[in-house]
Amino acid sequence: MTQKEAIEYTIKLAKKATDKEIRPNPFVGAVVLDQDGKLLGEGYHQKIGGPHAEVNAIEDALKKIKDLRETTLFVSLEPCSHFGKTPPCCDLIIQHGIKKVVIASLDPNPKVNSVEKLKQNGIEVEVMNDPEAILLNRRFFTQHLQKRPYFILKTASTIDGKIADRSNESKWISNEKSRRFVHVQLRTNADAILTSYKTIIQDKASLTIRIDKNPIIETNVIIIDKELSLLKEEYASLPIFYKRTNTKIYFISNKNRTSSQSSGIEFIKGSFNEDGLIFSSIAASLLEKGIFSILTEGGNKINTSLIEQKFADELYWFIAPKILNDQFGVSMLGIDKSRDIQDTFHFDLINVNKIDDDVLLHYHFKSKHSL
Amino acid sequence: MTQKEAIEYTIKLAKKATDKEIRPNPFVGAVVLDQDGKLLGEGYHQKIGGPHAEVNAIEDALKKIKDLRETTLFVSLEPCSHFGKTPPCCDLIIQHGIKKVVIASLDPNPKVNSVEKLKQNGIEVEVMNDPEAILLNRRFFTQHLQKRPYFILKTASTIDGKIADRSNESKWISNEKSRRFVHVQLRTNADAILTSYKTIIQDKASLTIRIDKNPIIETNVIIIDKELSLLKEEYASLPIFYKRTNTKIYFISNKNRTSSQSSGIEFIKGSFNEDGLIFSSIAASLLEKGIFSILTEGGNKINTSLIEQKFADELYWFIAPKILNDQFGVSMLGIDKSRDIQDTFHFDLINVNKIDDDVLLHYHFKSKHSL
Repeated sequence: MTQKEAIEYTIKLAKKATDKEIRPNPFVGAVVLDQDGKLLGEGYHQKIGGPHAEVNAIEDALKKIKDLRETTLFVSLEPCSHFGKTPPCCDLIIQHGIKKVVIASLDPNPKVNSVEKLKQNGIEVEVMNDPEAILLNRRFFTQHLQKRPYFILKTASTIDGKIADRSNESKWISNEKSRRFVHVQLRTNADAILTSYKTIIQDKASLTIRIDKNPIIETNVIIIDKELSLLKEEYASLPIFYKRTNTKIYFISNKNRTSSQSSGIEFIKGSFNEDGLIFSSIAASLLEKGIFSILTEGGNKINTSLIEQKFADELYWFIAPKILNDQFGVSMLGIDKSRDIQDTFHFDLINVNKIDDDVLLHYHFKSKHSL
Repeated sequence: MTQKEAIEYTIKLAKKATDKEIRPNPFVGAVVLDQDGKLLGEGYHQKIGGPHAEVNAIEDALKKIKDLRETTLFVSLEPCSHFGKTPPCCDLIIQHGIKKVVIASLDPNPKVNSVEKLKQNGIEVEVMNDPEAILLNRRFFTQHLQKRPYFILKTASTIDGKIADRSNESKWISNEKSRRFVHVQLRTNADAILTSYKTIIQDKASLTIRIDKNPIIETNVIIIDKELSLLKEEYASLPIFYKRTNTKIYFISNKNRTSSQSSGIEFIKGSFNEDGLIFSSIAASLLEKGIFSILTEGGNKINTSLIEQKFADELYWFIAPKILNDQFGVSMLGIDKSRDIQDTFHFDLINVNKIDDDVLLHYHFKSKHSL
């Protein structure tokens, strides 16, 4: 295995975990190779609270060989050097006298500084800054470098980008399989779903995870509701207010309200301007509450704001095989703000998925590449 | 080979030809099977003016067996019964005493009536009305049943459906490979390209076929220009007015003009209403001029009209990985006409193509299925 192949393989291993299993931890994979490049051990971080990738890879290698002093450890993210839920991987590497460590991407967490510590202990260290390894942990990097949760924008529109007609009617634009994908893949892997109080009212949304005949799963919900309109008596019986056992509704308003009659409701104060919520104003509060990745299922206003404020880290766009052809139908995107065609927001196309007659396009926001 | 497999195979054979090679003829494939379903001969219509599929299949079979009296002929479209550029296939079938003919789809041309003629000659005939076989000849069916050319709508937009910004700037939205596809696949296979005089002016378009370093190929162009503005002196040097040797510009206006100073220019009178051209008003004239399939490369108005008037038989939509996010940028579709979300125009998704970071979605207009 060449160095390049080894790095690629650590990323492949890392991807065996799902966001749901490890969040808010990063995805990490690791391999141990002998001096001829032969694979001795491999591992990945499988579960929050469980052993790190390096531990798994080293243990796997020890089944084959007792002395690791002539081996190289490849790891997709810088090994930890601090005590978290598990002891520092850095110490384990030093303890086994591993000859060389190749790190595909550095940990943005300031508490982590393995590179120096390993070097001080006579271990050769090579840092790659591999784009794929960085991309792998976009959520984790966003949290640490941008001090905000990672936003995944989901929308379903007609070919002409409409999410509802003039009278705001929208059910259903995408097909059943597409909607199932939202539950199985997107809602399941986010810490919370963000939407507006208007969508909650219009769609009578519960925003739970419903997969076939399985028991319904609760989700955390973030509702942008500047005036806390949804707390009016008339909305008390909306599906969103189901009895929660392990999740919360976070209301984003411009009020100073803190206490609630229900344990399932919390309040976050945000700043608003004429275009709506300023997302940076709630970033710290969300991280404090343990919300690191957010699926947004909003309308035109939320979508537009996320794009304008460059908070849309990913886009999942379902396209139904329909055309409304009414310019005054509700568009998924668009604000009254002039922008030149040369100044568009750029995305990377990650995946194209045919879901019967729907198409699902998955994009990453471009500037993230240079994280 | 079962009957189903034989029909599918005739369609596969038919598709070996390109639109360019056979238009305005239909795509046709044929096979000859013996009584055990063994393939004896196969053929397809390869070239306008050349032998029909049945002739090729029968000749192929005669290489293996001299007596076709116990064979079955499968053909994707009803055999011709009239003298066109070649003698009627129907007579050839009768002459060889073929036992049975299975026809996947009937010819909409009223001059064709093989079914009766074959039966009168003691040949067993089975007609399938196979949806795939009908779909195969959408252009041909549209011409004969709807008495109009077949329209292929091409557009390239941002994710938010914009084809230009507020100031009408648009170059280039799609990438180079996508634009190459337009030349190689779309322009090459159409009888003419339709656009508006505004697009001709804004884009300084020549609408020729330019593929790599090959010689430039002319195309017929249809320009919607109600007031014949493009004939003003100031536009005389636009690239569209290059010296043509074998193609024409057809101006669609509301004028009665017939003669032109240039042999490369012809005039068609159309009817217009407040939304623009009524496409049915030029249908007969276009067919008379030998224009059976039209690639449209217009802006919002042409796209919108084609959809509203149900003249958009196919849609090729290139999506660039960009968002303008300006609601007043120019949209690829949309008119000020209220439509409910239940009443959208429906399409069938035919193909999804990833062209680097662009996506190409190919749709057929749905109602055509029931042709």
